[in-house]
Amino acid sequence: MTSAKTDAALAAKRQQLEALQAEIAALEASQGGEPVSPLAPARFPDLPSVRGLEIATVAAGVRYRERDDVMLARLAEGSSVAGVFTKSLTRAAPVLWCQDRLAALPDGPWPRAILVNAGNANAFTGTHGEAAVARLAAATGAALDLAPKAVLMASTGVIGEPLPADRIDAKLGELTQALSPGHTEAAARAIMTTDTFPKGAGQTIALGGHEIRIAGIAKGSGMIAPDMATMLAFVFTDAAVAQPLLAHWLAESNETSFNAITVDSDTSTSDTLLLAATGAAGDTPIESDEDPRAAPLRQAIAAVLRDLALQVVRDGEGATKLVQLDIRGAADDLSAKRIGLAIANSPLVKTAIAGEDPNWGRIVMAVGKAGEPADRDRLSIWFGRALVAEKGWVADTYREDQGAAEMRKSEISITVDVGVGAGSATVWTCDLTKRYIEINADYRS
Amino acid sequence: MTSAKTDAALAAKRQQLEALQAEIAALEASQGGEPVSPLAPARFPDLPSVRGLEIATVAAGVRYRERDDVMLARLAEGSSVAGVFTKSLTRAAPVLWCQDRLAALPDGPWPRAILVNAGNANAFTGTHGEAAVARLAAATGAALDLAPKAVLMASTGVIGEPLPADRIDAKLGELTQALSPGHTEAAARAIMTTDTFPKGAGQTIALGGHEIRIAGIAKGSGMIAPDMATMLAFVFTDAAVAQPLLAHWLAESNETSFNAITVDSDTSTSDTLLLAATGAAGDTPIESDEDPRAAPLRQAIAAVLRDLALQVVRDGEGATKLVQLDIRGAADDLSAKRIGLAIANSPLVKTAIAGEDPNWGRIVMAVGKAGEPADRDRLSIWFGRALVAEKGWVADTYREDQGAAEMRKSEISITVDVGVGAGSATVWTCDLTKRYIEINADYRS
Repeated sequence: MTSAKTDAALAAKRQQLEALQAEIAALEASQGGEPVSPLAPARFPDLPSVRGLEIATVAAGVRYRERDDVMLARLAEGSSVAGVFTKSLTRAAPVLWCQDRLAALPDGPWPRAILVNAGNANAFTGTHGEAAVARLAAATGAALDLAPKAVLMASTGVIGEPLPADRIDAKLGELTQALSPGHTEAAARAIMTTDTFPKGAGQTIALGGHEIRIAGIAKGSGMIAPDMATMLAFVFTDAAVAQPLLAHWLAESNETSFNAITVDSDTSTSDTLLLAATGAAGDTPIESDEDPRAAPLRQAIAAVLRDLALQVVRDGEGATKLVQLDIRGAADDLSAKRIGLAIANSPLVKTAIAGEDPNWGRIVMAVGKAGEPADRDRLSIWFGRALVAEKGWVADTYREDQGAAEMRKSEISITVDVGVGAGSATVWTCDLTKRYIEINADYRS
Repeated sequence: MTSAKTDAALAAKRQQLEALQAEIAALEASQGGEPVSPLAPARFPDLPSVRGLEIATVAAGVRYRERDDVMLARLAEGSSVAGVFTKSLTRAAPVLWCQDRLAALPDGPWPRAILVNAGNANAFTGTHGEAAVARLAAATGAALDLAPKAVLMASTGVIGEPLPADRIDAKLGELTQALSPGHTEAAARAIMTTDTFPKGAGQTIALGGHEIRIAGIAKGSGMIAPDMATMLAFVFTDAAVAQPLLAHWLAESNETSFNAITVDSDTSTSDTLLLAATGAAGDTPIESDEDPRAAPLRQAIAAVLRDLALQVVRDGEGATKLVQLDIRGAADDLSAKRIGLAIANSPLVKTAIAGEDPNWGRIVMAVGKAGEPADRDRLSIWFGRALVAEKGWVADTYREDQGAAEMRKSEISITVDVGVGAGSATVWTCDLTKRYIEINADYRS
């Protein structure tokens, strides 16, 4: 069936394709960056000004030109701070620094400042990396009249290159001078790397006669990628919450937000999520979950975390579809989550979604490979509201155009009941497109 | 930096790109299939004729037109057969059938025939699937004068569609008439789905005064994909080997061959590897590893398995690079393999290789996410023979052009010493290209 003529025509077309791709890449580069994700929110939200928090940003030229790339946050005395971090065994120097600071609590100085840079992850930089962290903690502490160990740090960008600490150090005077309330959008922009839009989320709630404000920012566009796409998030509230309780809330909310999303299954060396409660709204501290103020505040914080996490998926490299996977009927919630992530990380599922192909066979495959209890003959799958498969086979009522209609949406819902128990979980992912390959292969980092 | 003019130019170019991609897809479709992988061997090897083995193939029209899509192998009386299968929890009906047959040994009839079809996986087909297997086992048994349970079966192709058992049944007379020695290349072609070339490997060795022949065939081009890309392999020898010993050899060799490769991390519902020893070369049976003939035969079988496994990677969907990952210095061999597979399955590592980018930071990331013991500050990485990183940082002697030279090769070697012990493993993978996305997203299955 192959003819020499068709071969020649194909070769010519493929050459044209490569030339065109190069032209497009050049045009995009001349635009100064990636086009904004089609899944991006219309605009950055209006975030409430969290009392007890001051922010400043500056252009230090760590790697980028003509944009702010360092942010500094100062927290009021008496703030509680909690953090969760990447589980990578090749964690970056600032991650190890933050973990040490938080592990020492309640001994050691309480965190009062957070210094973040984009453009260089200070990861896999050996003893040089530790020295850079120590130097910047000392310099920031000196500028703010704090102990060096009261300064937390996060870095995102290329790995294996020494952090130009001198360039950041040179701007610390300017930064501390500029500290003032607000500035969350500027901060969200200053920590961007391959992100195509700045990410922010907030809530204002009435609690025990006080108005409590929550504002958070995040960056990340692979979940998860050592080159310029680490996930960082910083969430602030002016409620007063005891540190152990804050740490408990953060760990729990993280499981259903940042730990329930995946873009490409890769784990950054630098993922960092910090939650700070300044207490500056003026109410008495919440000490336990028995406090009637605990549940609503906890829920509001969880909502902000989830909003930020979904924005990270919406900015997934090359993403054109946001996919919500609801898993039910699993042995327990953890098992449900593992099944959800097996589906969410399957290249075959993600490419099918990119192609708007209602390929439920690939969902069955991914459930099978998860290694978690599932009953092949009681498995049910829904695309949107349409029942696709049940009792180990395609559903009698299912018509392919039902699945196709769901797949054409930009926000897709897939539900799977694995038929063995009462465990459930929700995870989010995006599709896998040629654009992902272009971003990660065609353009040398 | 963005201008309306550039936006308009970009939109126009992107439209041209889509039109060109559609033209290329149409041309490729008119060619009747995928272009052959650039990593394919020059030709199908000359395989020795294994005594005690007869093969026939036929065009049953299961899904394809104008090509053979069913193969039947008959084994001499007294043959030993061993198998390994997918660990998927949503295993296909023929996989469950084979597992039941082999688990019953030494009771129950010994396997004497293997019936394989391409085009339909008979997976996720509920009770219909089991009935189709029972029907074809009975019909094949009747045609060959064997018990139904002496017939093993494997199916590969689309999932969730009923297997057209009647079409296969109708050809069984023709198939059994055509059984004769040889035909391995025809068999390798009959079991292909998205494969771009037929896969075969063989060995002939002198053993205890007898000439022992080994011939094997395989198919698979995602490792691992429920749609038309399941991995199947059938290996035959005319040596005489006791079944428990053969099963032991197969399980062990499988770990360093088919279980050491990955294309896209997805697990098929149908992966099947069968090894048969007919004993027709005429020598006395090998009963244990103490037998001096055991080691050389075992090594020859292992070599055939590895050859076939690497051909599957060479036919990885969209692959342009074959990558060998040697992991050393791990806590133990299993830990080394897990680290190797974490690197081999990382989309960021695989896209970097597609882009010929010597991006060692992504290797560090993948080691970190493996969750296995590793010492960040004793980690060493080599691209080819060039030492890239050591002691937690880029090596003093490394120059980027050394890594770039290795990445330009079509067969790439990456070595990682994780610095904690004496465990080692080798795994193989391929790069992740836009072609993978095209194959799995653009063309609806």
